[in-house]
Order: sequence, then structure tokens, then C-alpha cells
Amino acid sequence: MKAVTITEPGGPEVLEWMEVDDPVPAGGEVVVDVVASALNRADVMQRMGLYPVPAGASPYPGLEVSGRISALGEGVTGWQVGDEVCALLTGGGYAEKVAVPAGQLLTVPHGVGLIEAAALPEAVATVWSNLVLTAELQEGDTFLVHGGTGGVGTTAIQIAKALGARVVTTAGGSEKADRARELGADVAIDYRTQDFVEHGPYDVILDVVGGQYLGRNVNALAADGRLVVIGLQDGLTAELNLAELVFKRASVHGTTLRTRPPEQKAAIVADVQNTVWPMVESGAVRLVVDRVLPMAEAGEAHRLMETSQHIGKILLVTG
Amino acid sequence: MKAVTITEPGGPEVLEWMEVDDPVPAGGEVVVDVVASALNRADVMQRMGLYPVPAGASPYPGLEVSGRISALGEGVTGWQVGDEVCALLTGGGYAEKVAVPAGQLLTVPHGVGLIEAAALPEAVATVWSNLVLTAELQEGDTFLVHGGTGGVGTTAIQIAKALGARVVTTAGGSEKADRARELGADVAIDYRTQDFVEHGPYDVILDVVGGQYLGRNVNALAADGRLVVIGLQDGLTAELNLAELVFKRASVHGTTLRTRPPEQKAAIVADVQNTVWPMVESGAVRLVVDRVLPMAEAGEAHRLMETSQHIGKILLVTG
Repeated sequence: MKAVTITEPGGPEVLEWMEVDDPVPAGGEVVVDVVASALNRADVMQRMGLYPVPAGASPYPGLEVSGRISALGEGVTGWQVGDEVCALLTGGGYAEKVAVPAGQLLTVPHGVGLIEAAALPEAVATVWSNLVLTAELQEGDTFLVHGGTGGVGTTAIQIAKALGARVVTTAGGSEKADRARELGADVAIDYRTQDFVEHGPYDVILDVVGGQYLGRNVNALAADGRLVVIGLQDGLTAELNLAELVFKRASVHGTTLRTRPPEQKAAIVADVQNTVWPMVESGAVRLVVDRVLPMAEAGEAHRLMETSQHIGKILLVTG
Repeated sequence: MKAVTITEPGGPEVLEWMEVDDPVPAGGEVVVDVVASALNRADVMQRMGLYPVPAGASPYPGLEVSGRISALGEGVTGWQVGDEVCALLTGGGYAEKVAVPAGQLLTVPHGVGLIEAAALPEAVATVWSNLVLTAELQEGDTFLVHGGTGGVGTTAIQIAKALGARVVTTAGGSEKADRARELGADVAIDYRTQDFVEHGPYDVILDVVGGQYLGRNVNALAADGRLVVIGLQDGLTAELNLAELVFKRASVHGTTLRTRPPEQKAAIVADVQNTVWPMVESGAVRLVVDRVLPMAEAGEAHRLMETSQHIGKILLVTG
């Protein structure tokens, strides 16, 4: 098969679409013939050499795919060769084939095309696990998500609205802010000209920025507020005001989906299938796809993500 | 009545046992004729002017008492004048009388004397709310509590053991470490000569030190670990390694019992009555009282706490 390999750590030009060995399914895994994969910020970090590949994971980037099952490993039940699926991966999605634990497979929601389905698993599982399992977002809570037009942001706005929260988001520029409002955000702030702290306090904040925002995020939390950091786009460490945290009874959570053990991933995926797929099928949560490029142009796709001019997900297709 | 007043922010000498106005119970409150109160670190901070008294709270220190109900405010049911009780307060315990919402009253556990019962409410409610509600300590978890011979530490060791955790604690000196082991700690570390990080990783850490320990506490957390900071004895702020938090899927919580709204306090107190009082009555959780002094010697009691030579609670009695 072919896969996008990282020939050495570096810029988008190090990505090469080349012949590699086919994956072999372990017990409990299936092989998916990939139709599409989608980009995540973690792929860019991995390409730069800043995100160590978890032990046992594929060396190729790609945390989600859609496609058709082409082989079943030992002990897999409930799935058939030929089934159309999408899947949450620990890596290896930028390829013609990928092996994945059966617990990380999802059906393709009714009304969603097979290519577009690749845009769902990582963002939806990330948002669901953080909003519901980690932050325990409640109906009526005020929720802030940074980067409201990215893959996580567009998904978080819609799922939080579906859960009954008041949603505030930040975006770079008035055009992106408009787009975030169209997706359902009650307030969309252009962070270049406005301060998100002034629009708080927030019961829950979902953050992809990291260090540079830590102080202001904690400032902006309400009593009993929960800050969940899932990205470190700007700063790995920062000063934490513990006194503020104590007096507010607030908490700071770091999470990542990729390093979770398979049983945690399977539990999250099962939850997503049962609770978020109906939201997608009813139209309450809509897919936002920026564009679709061939796998051979993965470097160009990374360049696009690094300029942050996209809105929603960037997809890569094999065909 | 008489109360210990803070004549001005400062050292132990600013505490004065003097005549003040009697408290008047609001609707839903009772007046308790105080038999005993107990010291907490927050009382020392308040005396120094470093802990603002929450709005509406008594200006006198003291977060817990035992005694007898002497008057019922409007709408109080389930309690009678003359009942022996102990109570969680938002302040005002260092006095002959205190008004307290009925939801913050507890019975005196069978087998515990009325004076000793003053040692229970704050430490037990603090430990229970943090271990169970905030950190969700599970059977089989490894749990670290700093300061294993203080009021919170002695209680946390015993409640965590009763919940089925493996318990590690730090103490200042080998004598205190021995005492912590007698209370049930599986491992007690003399922090003057040993590093608690080496005895980890910990699923849950309960910390009263704050800034100075933040980095090492986060280092010492296990995957999915929870650090709960409830005291700031050494440092209000510190550098937080967000990357470490994210890769471990760990969290840092700050909490304080005193600023919780009355309905949260009542829910915690009801939980303590139902779940911890049976542990006290069965002997699984034992009271540790360092000494009992008269209210007029509150300054001496504060001096003692500031030297950290006590083991367990320091009580103040009116009689």
C-alpha cells in the first residue's frame, strides 16, 4: 500500500506519499481500506518531531479515517468485510490501509457521505470526552471554546448548544466570528480586538492555546469552573495562580485522546455512537469541511492548517 | 457573650477574649451554646489579615464547634433546644454562642465526647468533599496526603484507608512519620530526608503546601491523576507544566470549604453524617486531639499551630 511518511522531522515538505508494507491486524483489530482521512493539529506536531508516537502505534500520521472493512482479525464480532465505517485511530490514517481495534469503529451516520465521515471521529470524540466526561458540562452552563472555526471549535460549539449550554467562542477576525455565530455560538469574539475575560465568567473553558492563555483562562473561570487544556499551540508552561484556583474552587485539566488506553477509547467511541450520532443525523451537529485534497498533497494540506486560514476540517482522500 | 476577637491583623497576641453582642439566628439557623471549637490553618491566615471573611460571615475566627442548641430560628425542623451537636461554620466558632444554618449541624457520633466532637466537622467535611466529590478516589488507588499528622492529614489517612486506597503521607521528622503509620498510612515519608516523588506515582494527591510543591506534585501524578490543593502554606503561585498535565491526562483542583454556598455545605454535611459517622462509630476513623486549651488562651493555641509541633487537632473550650 501507499502511506504518507515523515521522511525526517521538519516542514510540510518532509511528507512523502510512498510505498510501504501493508498493516497486519492483531487480535481484535480490523483492516480498513481508507477512503479519506482528516488533519489534526497533532499531525503537524508529529511531523515536526514534537509529538512522540505512542508505543505500538503506526509511524504514519492520521488520527481518523473513513473507508470499508477489508479484513477481520481474530475474535472480531459485529462487523463484516465490506462494512462502511469511520474510525478513531492512534495513528496511521494517512494511508491506503490501516489496522484499528474494533472498539474504535463507528458506523457512518445516515445522511453523511463516506468521505465526509472522516471529519468526525477525532473532533467529536475529543469534544464529547472533554465536555461530558472531564468537564461535566451542565445545561445552562456558560461555555467558552477557543478557536471556534477549527475542527474542534466548530464541533464544540454545536455539541455544547445541543447540551443546553450558553456558548461563547473566540476566532481570528470578524469573518470567522460571523461563521462561528452561524454555527450557533451565542457570542463570538474576535480575539484580535476583544478580551474574552470580559465576556465571562465561564463554567467550562475548552482551550487549545495552552501557556499563553493560562492566566487569563483562570481569571475568566466562574466559581466551580473547569478549564480543560487539550492543545498547546502557544506555550507548554505558565504561571498558575493557585490562590485564585482555591478561592474559586476551580480546576485545570489536561487531556489528550491519543494516549488513552484502548479500553478508554472504546468507551468514548461507544458513547459517541449512542449520543452524538443521533445529533448528527438530526442535523443538530453539522459537519464543517474546509476542503478535500489527495493524500499525495498532504504537505500542502499541512501548510494550509499552519496558516490557520481554514474553517472546519481539511480532508485527504486516497482515490 | 464572650468571643475571641481579632483586634487588628497580626501575630497571636492580637487575639482577645472579650465581651461582644450575642448572635441572632436568621431563618433556618439555630444558636449553639459552644462547648468547644477547634483550630484550622485558615484561622491563622484570617488573624494575619490574609483570609478575607466571606460576606455575611461572623468576624470571629472558628470554622467548627460542638455544643448544645439554645435557640431555633424560624423554619427549623428536626432539631430541638438542648440537642447536643457539632457543626461546620463559616466563622464565629471561637465564642460562647454561634448562629449556624441547620443544614450544617451534625449529631455527636456515639462514643465521642462532646468536647472532642468539635475536632470533627471541618477536617472530616474537607477530606470527604475532596477525596470523594472532587478527586473521586477509587478503591485500589494510590493516595498521597501531605502533612499526615495535621488535622486534615490524620483524618485523610484514615478515611482513605476506609475507602480502600493505598496511602502514602509526608511528615516532618521520623517521630511524626511513625505516628502517621500508626494511623494506617502504608508509607510515611520524612520529607526532610526523602522525596515523595520517588514513592509515586499517585492517583490522587491532597496538598496543603501550594506553590512550593506544585511542580513535584504534578511530576508525581499517575496517568489520569488528580491533584487537589486545599492549602497554600508555602506559595500562592507556581509554574505549571501544561504539557505534562496533557500527556498524563491529569488535573489540578483548588478547593475551599469555607466559601461554598450553604446548599453545598449542607449536601456535604449530610453525606458526612451518612457515610463518615458510621466509620467514626465503628472505630475505623479515630479522632486525634493534640490538646485542649481555654478560649482565653487562643493566642497560645495559634502559636502552637504555627510551630507545627502538634499532632492532630488543637481544641479551645469555653468552660
